[in-house]
Amino acid sequence: MPERPLGRVTILGLGLMGGSLARAITAVDAAERVTGWSPRSTERDAALTAGAVGFASADWRQAVADADMVVLAMPLGAAVEMLPDVGAATPSAVTLTDVVSLKQPLADGAEAARVGDRWVGAHPMVGGASSGFWASRSDLYQDARVWVVSGTASGEHRERVEALWRAVGATTEEIDAGGHDRAMALASHLPQLVSNALAGVLASEGLSPSALGPGGCDMTRLASSSPDMWLDLLAHSHPDLVKGLRGVAVEAERIADYVETLDLAELSKVMRRTATWRERR
Amino acid sequence: MPERPLGRVTILGLGLMGGSLARAITAVDAAERVTGWSPRSTERDAALTAGAVGFASADWRQAVADADMVVLAMPLGAAVEMLPDVGAATPSAVTLTDVVSLKQPLADGAEAARVGDRWVGAHPMVGGASSGFWASRSDLYQDARVWVVSGTASGEHRERVEALWRAVGATTEEIDAGGHDRAMALASHLPQLVSNALAGVLASEGLSPSALGPGGCDMTRLASSSPDMWLDLLAHSHPDLVKGLRGVAVEAERIADYVETLDLAELSKVMRRTATWRERR
Repeated sequence: MPERPLGRVTILGLGLMGGSLARAITAVDAAERVTGWSPRSTERDAALTAGAVGFASADWRQAVADADMVVLAMPLGAAVEMLPDVGAATPSAVTLTDVVSLKQPLADGAEAARVGDRWVGAHPMVGGASSGFWASRSDLYQDARVWVVSGTASGEHRERVEALWRAVGATTEEIDAGGHDRAMALASHLPQLVSNALAGVLASEGLSPSALGPGGCDMTRLASSSPDMWLDLLAHSHPDLVKGLRGVAVEAERIADYVETLDLAELSKVMRRTATWRERR
Repeated sequence: MPERPLGRVTILGLGLMGGSLARAITAVDAAERVTGWSPRSTERDAALTAGAVGFASADWRQAVADADMVVLAMPLGAAVEMLPDVGAATPSAVTLTDVVSLKQPLADGAEAARVGDRWVGAHPMVGGASSGFWASRSDLYQDARVWVVSGTASGEHRERVEALWRAVGATTEEIDAGGHDRAMALASHLPQLVSNALAGVLASEGLSPSALGPGGCDMTRLASSSPDMWLDLLAHSHPDLVKGLRGVAVEAERIADYVETLDLAELSKVMRRTATWRERR
């Protein structure tokens, strides 16, 4: 095991995710070199000033030159677009990875670009309300769970990506791209859009948000999420998101029927079943 | 203004709500006498031992004898059932009130029992996960908002109920029974049942609750609510709850269509509209 096991790491994107990863790798001195790229000069300057990266470039081709591992730390759409170019610009020994919260679009892109043997996608289960390098911190990944999609990559590349996340204090779990995206569609995207649906109805009914109690607040908090981040994800969502939304519609109609007909036995069944499920948490 | 402006207060029910009210009135010494009734001897004994009430009786008729004001602090169904009997057992100078979270069923009951001139319903916007006298505390109503339904009651009775809540540190707001119940149907009952609908779908899809992130947790927390408390409320819910549930079903289907057809412009509109509404909070 070399002293700095990650070799030369290039991080494309210096926002919350990429910036925090650069800070964390540098903090534990796990790489021979950390190079950053961002289209924004303010972010590059801030990352250099903070010592998060040793080098920063406005040209991503220059940034990936000589790298052992390239991390795409950018929104999904940008990552899907950039992966084939980065693949073409780097030799086959270079490990390609990313931190995007959906994996199938990148798995498909990696296969199409013939870099499936060296792309090892990752999704760290972290985040924050703020974005940009200014929100980044060296302990963002400490104790985080990171999904790793090894797909068809060879052992050497898998090991390098596992080592990356271990180095910054995270725990990795293997998953296949489709299973990962389905779980995200149900656990994250569906609750988001159900919150939007509920808030849309409350807005149409003229309810003031100040009338909400703690439960109503919880149920509409996601409705204030920024569309910018979400549209990118929704454009590539797993098909089970649509299935889940239609399922919620059916379930809401069914519950409405029970309330309307005062079928308290069925309402009790619905509530007991979900309480039992939720308490398994 | 007499030294102890509330006179002789009888609280029927010594759970979280009634027990806390007894403790609070006693703590500020606002009543000449606080009498409690509970069908459970353990609750009566606990309330006496804690000094929350000066007297406790196993017979509600005995407890309301000589009272200036009677507070029904019990679940909705029990309060609807008891209000006519308490009205018949007390002279017309006695103020009748309650702390139930729906007001129209009691307003209707008061009118039918010909006590509309002295029933002043109240709904303190407080609560807790726990119930029973053991969960009660003297500061439960401190700084709380209390909806007061004056209906057709005379000034003297209104003033006594306003004085009760002022004495325990709460702020009162007047509302009509129907408007109150509609707001509760939208702000509280609808979010509850939408959480059940979402959790029901996630359970059917086999998602483990441990896969939920912070947003998914928020959206399914209410799904673990106790059916016991809710069935009583849902049996008397405002008709706009059913309308709201069907509205959420329509909205969920509409959003599903947008996701399925990748109509990001419409998805963006939906999200921006709900974010704007939610930020008015």
